[in-house]
Order: sequence, then structure tokens, then C-alpha cells
Amino acid sequence: MFEIRERDGLARICRFETAHGLVETPTLLPVVNPNIQLFSGEDLRERFGVQMLITNSYIIDRTEELRQRALENGVHALVGFQGPIMTDSGTFQSHVYGDVEVKPLEIVRFQRDIGVDVGTLLDVFTEPDVDEGTAGAHVRETIERARESMLERGEMTLALPVQGSVFPRVREQCARELGELDSGFYPIGGVVPLMESYRYRELVDVIVASKKGLPPGSPVHLFGAGHPMLFSLAVLLGCDLFDSSSYVKFAREGRMMFADGTRHLAEMEYLPCSCPVCRGQTPEGLRSMQDEERTRALASHNLHVCFDELRAIKQAISEGRLWELVERRCRCHPNLLDGLRALARHGEYLERFEPLSRPAALFYTGPETVHRPAVARYERHLLAGYSGEGANVLVELRDTPHKPYSEHYRKELDALAGYRCHVIVSSLFGAVPPELDQIYPIAQSIVPEELDMESRNMRDFHVERFMNRKGYGKHLQWSEDAPQYLLAAEGERGDPDVRRVGMIADFQFGAGAASALLDGTVELVKSRRTKKIRNVLVDGEHVLSLRAEDGLYTLKLPGARRLHAAFGAPRMRVVVNSDSVEFNREGKNVFARFVVECDDEIRPMEECLVVDGSDALVAVGRALLNREEMLSFGSGVAVKVREGLPPDEK
Amino acid sequence: MFEIRERDGLARICRFETAHGLVETPTLLPVVNPNIQLFSGEDLRERFGVQMLITNSYIIDRTEELRQRALENGVHALVGFQGPIMTDSGTFQSHVYGDVEVKPLEIVRFQRDIGVDVGTLLDVFTEPDVDEGTAGAHVRETIERARESMLERGEMTLALPVQGSVFPRVREQCARELGELDSGFYPIGGVVPLMESYRYRELVDVIVASKKGLPPGSPVHLFGAGHPMLFSLAVLLGCDLFDSSSYVKFAREGRMMFADGTRHLAEMEYLPCSCPVCRGQTPEGLRSMQDEERTRALASHNLHVCFDELRAIKQAISEGRLWELVERRCRCHPNLLDGLRALARHGEYLERFEPLSRPAALFYTGPETVHRPAVARYERHLLAGYSGEGANVLVELRDTPHKPYSEHYRKELDALAGYRCHVIVSSLFGAVPPELDQIYPIAQSIVPEELDMESRNMRDFHVERFMNRKGYGKHLQWSEDAPQYLLAAEGERGDPDVRRVGMIADFQFGAGAASALLDGTVELVKSRRTKKIRNVLVDGEHVLSLRAEDGLYTLKLPGARRLHAAFGAPRMRVVVNSDSVEFNREGKNVFARFVVECDDEIRPMEECLVVDGSDALVAVGRALLNREEMLSFGSGVAVKVREGLPPDEK
Repeated sequence: MFEIRERDGLARICRFETAHGLVETPTLLPVVNPNIQLFSGEDLRERFGVQMLITNSYIIDRTEELRQRALENGVHALVGFQGPIMTDSGTFQSHVYGDVEVKPLEIVRFQRDIGVDVGTLLDVFTEPDVDEGTAGAHVRETIERARESMLERGEMTLALPVQGSVFPRVREQCARELGELDSGFYPIGGVVPLMESYRYRELVDVIVASKKGLPPGSPVHLFGAGHPMLFSLAVLLGCDLFDSSSYVKFAREGRMMFADGTRHLAEMEYLPCSCPVCRGQTPEGLRSMQDEERTRALASHNLHVCFDELRAIKQAISEGRLWELVERRCRCHPNLLDGLRALARHGEYLERFEPLSRPAALFYTGPETVHRPAVARYERHLLAGYSGEGANVLVELRDTPHKPYSEHYRKELDALAGYRCHVIVSSLFGAVPPELDQIYPIAQSIVPEELDMESRNMRDFHVERFMNRKGYGKHLQWSEDAPQYLLAAEGERGDPDVRRVGMIADFQFGAGAASALLDGTVELVKSRRTKKIRNVLVDGEHVLSLRAEDGLYTLKLPGARRLHAAFGAPRMRVVVNSDSVEFNREGKNVFARFVVECDDEIRPMEECLVVDGSDALVAVGRALLNREEMLSFGSGVAVKVREGLPPDEK
Repeated sequence: MFEIRERDGLARICRFETAHGLVETPTLLPVVNPNIQLFSGEDLRERFGVQMLITNSYIIDRTEELRQRALENGVHALVGFQGPIMTDSGTFQSHVYGDVEVKPLEIVRFQRDIGVDVGTLLDVFTEPDVDEGTAGAHVRETIERARESMLERGEMTLALPVQGSVFPRVREQCARELGELDSGFYPIGGVVPLMESYRYRELVDVIVASKKGLPPGSPVHLFGAGHPMLFSLAVLLGCDLFDSSSYVKFAREGRMMFADGTRHLAEMEYLPCSCPVCRGQTPEGLRSMQDEERTRALASHNLHVCFDELRAIKQAISEGRLWELVERRCRCHPNLLDGLRALARHGEYLERFEPLSRPAALFYTGPETVHRPAVARYERHLLAGYSGEGANVLVELRDTPHKPYSEHYRKELDALAGYRCHVIVSSLFGAVPPELDQIYPIAQSIVPEELDMESRNMRDFHVERFMNRKGYGKHLQWSEDAPQYLLAAEGERGDPDVRRVGMIADFQFGAGAASALLDGTVELVKSRRTKKIRNVLVDGEHVLSLRAEDGLYTLKLPGARRLHAAFGAPRMRVVVNSDSVEFNREGKNVFARFVVECDDEIRPMEECLVVDGSDALVAVGRALLNREEMLSFGSGVAVKVREGLPPDEK
């Protein structure tokens, strides 16, 4: 069982069920050396909150005494840990030593026989610098071994590592074929050499290519990743588990991990840390320890820092602020910044997982912010939904403060209301019609006074593109004369509030939504305190509520009926099977395993229409997953149903 | 006594001596409320490492019982703390309540009488939004009070707060006049409203203006600053002490401080912290505490985080990496990023304090990095020292990787050696002749593959400027044809190693240094292992050593003699008084209090010539301070002397 509890784009907090208990991801599996155990398994659990650990089945297999004990009492007794245990297979040893003395099926059977929770295929470790043909051949061998090994796994979960070197095409293909074997656990392998040489740009491409091919409903493990500096970027790309012996290796070399990099104890004059090791301690105190004591102290510090960072990441996911954490962390090393920038190339993929809105404000951190999927998403919705018909003047307000856009121009905009013109302001997000200035992420973004040049260029690009796509002829920069000019423009445009309501509807649900939803007598209920629109009633029916937090709509049942009638399938639909229909009609949530199909355009946190196999409306709610996730996850909620449509009201 | 122990630009780790012991700055003085003490003084010292605290003399004075106890037993007994204690004077209360019931001289005498270590003038709190005339009037009143109060201070150090609202001119003037009173302790006051409303851009301008006017040898205290998010930026600008009651106030409101911002306990799902409060604790556990217990817990957490950050800052200073820490921290909020960018306006001032080289690589973090003083410094030295005579071709290599610049072009450059042409590569730093590609910060910088657009523009600006200033006519972009073209160029240029040695000398010491230092038979001693130049001998005398870590020279006595003869005073000189001369001739360091004058162009970590009052050479060494610091500090080393010139060798 693997189930999303909270998410932020591809990043997710999940529950992963094993025979030895639940694991909450993202998490780190400390590597335990069965020959030299620095900390006992229970020590790891109690002192550091370790939920799952990893040890090496190859080493156990090759050490006669360990082998016997493991076969007799099981791996959990061997390492003294009653929680879930994963084992590696010897693949990494083949990378280090060139070869291993074990056959693929043997080591899978051995892992199964010693009672491992998650065993690993003996895959072919492919170095970053082989040619694409070699990478392809290694991948074919890995897939062949995977097919055979799956038959030997018994009750054990078998991790099938994605290989393919630095070639995205090969990685994605490998991931896709392994994904079809449905093992339920996928490491990304062969990446240690990239991490060791700070090749983060290629690492990002490798992770994204692998994720694209893998089933989104299975946990993804980044093999050998153990530095807290990298965790947030990897989690942002959808990695769920990490494992590493770095905490010990670094400790033996006197190196201390921090979320912003590594420092050698020899160069420490201060300990900027309050972990149980550093609290009240001095660098001199650590340096004067005996070797073994110091190794244990530094390894403890390293684990504390790793788990602190994982909790910081989970907290950021729950706040919807993981991008900002990543953008800060990636400034710890210029090569990590390269990695962050590589995300710009994957905007289209990332956008599919980007929630419609986040609980937190969008903080600008630098030029990289313009490549966030939320920025691309805004433009996509704007171009798809914004109806420019009837516009004859486009006014652009430049260099406006960013929150909220029209507040500083309220007087001028009030004067313009009712005239046949479109006013936009240009922002980090490009063109913003003021009717949309309360919606996420426009009103919820905080941007410095001056944008970086790259952000300014991106903004100008957006504005140009918007104007070209919408066929505007006139483009007036805001000036002293503009209001007078506009006041002289022709004709009325109706109630500005209704115009706002319609424009938001077209923006959120796509072109045509406004005419479907607002056809009839429109009545707007406003907040007494803020005077903002709260509810939209049409012909006496409550069709929409406007959420204060993101300025977007929740769809009420009458609204859902209107959109269902106006939009043909598959638009906005989530199709559930017959086992689910009656529950959803009662207002119960849609679980992923009952989803048959889904509009490919639905994104997490978007409003959607739940329908049965014959496209009859069953319920309205909010999607928590996108299409590929709904079809891949075996458990968990796919749609949070708001209102079900009772059968008699069909 | 106030003395620099380590520094990084304006940032410094200092020893501050008080009647109740030494304080190492930068540090935070927690505000202790004499009426409600959440933690005892000794608790603060033992659990959090608090060295000095601050309490409010006005509150003590206005509470009869406290007043009596303080007058009888002293303030240290009153708050139960035997370390140094600072008191505020009621000025902040005048900001909060509009007025205070105490006279300026009364409160100074009261602070003196209760045995305070650092008391504070009752200055006039000037709000950010007054007009410049009002600010000026308040400042005149503050200075008048300061003059009178200084006469009443007794043995107590009297802190004289700089006021002047947001007007840099007024701030600087106020600072200068207070500085002349030589009280030895200067808070920057009136900034709480700026910090409360995140006006960090103006805060930066206020701090810089104040620092410009204040004597660099006195501690500077940023009044009311208590958020760890801001500490690094303030320290970078030369603030040494902070004080705040925020740790308690935030705790009462359920708010937790982190180095990247504030979070409300109600929104915490995870505790990303291993401090003694958070270790093994959950947000739910904290939420379920009784109010008073929770306040103590959160206040403890807040203090741990503050002192962790201060240790991180001190560690960064000792590593020479404070800029990178600040550039990361300022991405925690877009308004802090505005503050970081405001530093670009103060480049000329910051450059005066920027060390010639740092122990750490320069990491690029974003467009703001181009405004670091190290970048401006490089160009300043290049334009001052680089001798372009004889050049007839300028070849620019674009888009080269950055470390080391010429490595990728080694073959081509080898082919060019010996021809009358100058090859430069263009980089973040602008034009880099390959002869300089091993020096700091060129070889010691790590830059992403792609520069941000702003950095690229800055680079092009540098290259253009370099070419214009040097009068190059021909500008050839690197291409397939360039090597052939250059090989056909006329004439020889002599030994490329000697050319490198000379160009570095002109770069480091200024135009004319190479001809003075290398006049004679030049012999180069190279490292056997790296083949790099290590020592430069001229006519058998050891004039220069090339440092491996930054590619720059240490000056040997024969070299110093040559530069002393070639360059007229005050160039490169530090003039010491007669009490110091004999010690320095013996190779002992120059202490700041013996410095009479100093070349205004000397920067921290630059080589310098120590001379007596009649400009006779006394010693050669490395300056640790710039001119204004040497003339202001009353203690500490000004020049680390490498070799003294014995009197008989005059």
C-alpha cells in the first residue's frame, strides 16, 4: 500500500505499508553495515526516528557467519531492528569493484529467504560516461533480470532500479518497461557518480526521465543519496526514499553535514547547531575525542541534520512552500543552481502535477522563479480562458507593485469600469487583467520592488504573447493621459462585478464556462466586511462560491450541472466504475482504485465532475490527483467529493 | 577594549571588554523584563550561552520596589546575572507611548548609580515617516543630550544611539557628531518600525549611512533586532550587537523563529529542529502544553535558533563565506532580497573593507553576486595595474567554463605564447587576461554553467570598459580562424612565465610594480609537483613568493625595498610612531594604537610597507585593517609583520 497524504507538485508525503509496519515518506534509510554496526537498529529508531533501514544482502551472503544467522533468524534479528528493512543486492559493489560473485536469481532468493521487506534486483550499474548503445544494452540486461527475478520474489517487495546512464531516452524507456512489471518499488540507480562529482544538472534530467516512465503510484527511491543539501530538490522531483552510508563515511573522515553543505571538523571554529551532539559542545571538544567516540558523535550529528532537513521538507510540503525551500537550498553550491535551472526544461511535465493553488503565498527568490510551473500554469489558463472579444483598447500598467495589482490604480480603474476597454497590468506573470487580480497566484505572490532582468524579459515575453494571441491592435502604456483617453472610449460593458465573475470562470474552467454558468439572472452575494464577492447565484440557484484564500471558485452542484451540460466528455470528467457510483452519490470521496478514466487536463486541486460509465453526473468535487496518478495509485482518495447527486435527481 | 579577532569585510568577530567580563561579538542581548523574568540570568548563560543581557532602566526607575533594590544591591543582583548588563533608557517607551516621565540626565545618572556596564542615552526616537527637517531637529536634540549626558556617565560606558529616520545624510551626520564624543558604544536607533514592516531596503541604507559616520573601532548595536533571518545581513554591514524581546513576545503568540522565517505553532505539522525543546517533541505535544509551559518552551526554541544562527554567522566569517550565507538568507523573503540588492548602491564603501582575498572559493548564488565588492575590486586592480602596451590584438574567449579559465584553451594559448597579442577571456568578472587566471577571485570562483542575464550584461559591461580604457583597437572573438591569425602576428614577447609574474605584480601592487620588482636577472623557482611558480628571485635576492591558495604574492624584504624605493609616500605605507619602530624592526606586529598614518588605498589582507615618521622602511607585512580602522581601533593588530628590517640594515 502506497498512498498520498499531502502533496506539493511531484513532491508528496506518503504512507508506505510494509510487512513490518508503516513508513512515512519522504525518508532516509540509513545504511547499516552488518559487519560493523555503529548504532543498533533500535538506537537508530529511538534516537533519530529512523523508520526503515537498509543493509546489504550481498555482504551478508558472502560472510558465512552472517549468512547462517540471517537464514536461521531472519534479517530483522540479525541487525536488531523490528521495523521494515530493505536490502541492496551487490550492484553497488559491482560498480566499486567491477564485478560481484553472485548470480541475479540467487541474490533475490537469498533476500526473500532472510525475510527482507524490500529486496533489490541485481541490476547492471551503468556508469555516467558510457555511450548510449552500452547504456541501452545494460538496460536490456537489467530488464531481463527483472522479469526473471520477479518470479522468485515470493512475498517480498522487489525493488527494480532504473538504469540508463545520463541518457533521458534510455532512462525513460527502462522506467516504462520496469513499471509494467508492477513491482511496487522503484529505485533510480547508477547516480552516485553524478552526485559525487556534483553533476546535478544531469541528475535532474535523470530523475525526471525516470519519473516520466515510472508508475506515479509507486514509491521512488534515489539510490545512494544521503546529503541533506540535495534532499529538497530530489523530493521536489518526486523522490520518496533515500539511503546512504554517508553519515558514517563522512564522520570517519571528520566531516559534518549541514543543510547548506559539508564542513570539515578541522575548519570549524563554531558549531552552528543545537542537536544533542553539538548542544553545549565545542569544535575543540569534538576534535579532542578518541577516534571511535568522535565518529559516533559526528555520525549522530549527521543523522540529526538529515532528519531535521526531511522534517523541514515535509513541513514545506504541508505549507505548499517546497519550491522556495528548494530555490534557497540550490544556492548552496553553483552546481546545485545548475540543477535548479535544469528544471526550466521540464516545465511541461512539472505543470501536470502542480496544484491549482497553494496554501501559501508565492515568494519570488530569483530569476529561477519565473520557471516555476505556477507561472506557466497561469499563462496557460489565461490564454485558454480569457475572452478578449469586444476589446478595443489595451492599457498596460508597468512597474506596478505586485500585491494586489489594481489596488494602487483603484481610482483610475473605477473610472474605467463600464467602458469598452481592457486594462492589464504587467507583472512577473505577464499580462494580468485587473479582473483577475485577486486570484492565485497573482494576489498571493510577493515580489521584490525590482525584478531581475531575466524575470523582466520573461514578463515582456508573456505580455507580447498575450497580445498577439488575442489580436489586440492598440497598446497603450499607462500615462497621465490614459484615463482621459479611456473615459472617452465608446460604450458600456455591463456590471464590472459580473464581468469579474465571468472572467474568473473562463480563466479557471476554460472558455465557455462563463456563458454556461451565468446564463440567467445573476445575483452576487458579497461579504459584508470585505465587500468582496462570495457566492454566485443564477436564477436562484447557488452555482459558485468564491474562495477567499485563492480567489478561485468552488463549484456547487447547480454549477456542476451547467458545466456538465455545456462541456462534452472528457472535459472536467473523472469516470468511476459502478462499484463507486452509489457511494459518490451519497457524497463520499472517490478512491483512486475506482477511477476508470479521467480528463488529461485535470490537475491536483482542480474542480471536477464525477461521472459514471455513461457520462451521467454523479458528484462534484476537487481532484487531489492528476490523470496518471488516479490511474496508477492503488489506494487513497482521488477526488474529494463536495456534493453527490442523489439517484432520484439524475 | 574592543578588538577584531576575525573579519570578513565589515563583518567582524570582536572581543569587547566590560567591567563584568569579555563579550565575543556578534551576539544577541536577550531583553530581560525586570518585572517578569521568564528565565533567570544564570539560566540564560548556562542554557543558551548568553554573554550579555539588556534590561530596561526606565522600568526599574519607575517601579519603586525595583528602584530601591537596584540602588541598594546593583542591577546585577536585581536580575541575577553576573555578566555584563546593558540598559535601555526609556527611548523605546517614548516611541510606544509617545512620552516618558524622566529627564535625560536623570536616567543616565540612575543607570550609572545602579552599576550598569553599558547604559544608554535618552535619545529622541525618530519615526521613519517624519520629514527630513524634523529628523534633523531630533538629531540636534539627541546630540545635545549626548554632550551633557557624557559628563554624567562616570565609569559606565554610555551608548549613544544614532537617529535620523530614513535620511542617510542625517544619519551619517548624527553618527559623525556622536562619534566625536568617543563614547565607545553606538547603537543604531529608531529602526524597529522599519523591521516590523519589512522595509529592509531602507534599513540597509540606514545602517550603511550610520556606519559611514561612526568610528570603525567602536561596537555598533542594532537596537531591537532579534530575528535570526536578519542577523547575517546586519552583521555583513558591520553590526556587532543585537537585542530583542522577540524571543518571548513571539513565544507568547505561539510563533516559532527559524533562520528562514517565522512559523506559527498552529501551522506546524513537523518540527524541523533538533534543539533541546524540539528533540523528540511533536507540534501536537507543544500545542497541548499549558500556556506558561509552552511560552517557556517556544522562547527557549527561539533563543536556541538565534544563537545557532549567530554561530553560523561567526563560522561563515571565519571561513570568509559570509556573503554567501547572506545571499541565501535574503531569499527567505522578497523584501530581504530588496535589502540585499540595496547593497549594490554601497559598493564603493563596502570595497574599502573587503579583504584582498578570502580563504574560501567565491560561490555564485545569483545576479546579486555581481555586486559583491570582490568583483568591483578585481576590476579596480585590473584597470590600475594591467599594462596593455605593445598589444595589437585582443582576443576574447566567450562562454568559457570558469575554473581555471585558460585550461580549456591551453593548447591554443600555448600556441600564442611569445606573440605580440593579448588574449582575454570574459567571465563574471569581466575581462581576464589568462596570465591572471590563477589569482583570487578568478580561479577561486565557482559559477554555474550559464550566467544569469544580469550577470552576463555586467560581464559585457566590464569587457567593454576594459577595452575602452586600454585603448584596444582590434577585438577578435575567438573562432576557428583566430589561432592562425594570431600566429601570423608580429614579434616575440619574451618568456611567458616572466610575463605572468610581471602582470600579477602590476595587478596586485599597481602600475610600475613589475618594472621595480623585476629589474635585473629574474630567476623563477617552480614547484616540482605542480610546476607552478613559487618564488621569484631577482639578482639572487628573494623578492616575492607566490601563494598557492590565492595566486597572489607575499612580499619579501628585498621586494619591499624595491617597492619602497620606486613608489613615493604614502603609497603602500603604514606610518608607525617612534614607540613602535624598534619592535617592528624585530619582526613584531604593528598594533593599531601605534599607527600614525596609512595609505588610504590599503585594504585588509594587502601587503604593506611599515615606515617610520621619516619614511624609512621598518618592516614588511600584511595589513589586517584599512586606514580608517587603523586610526580608530585602540587595540589589536593592524599589520601582521612578516620581516623586520634591522636598524643596521637601514
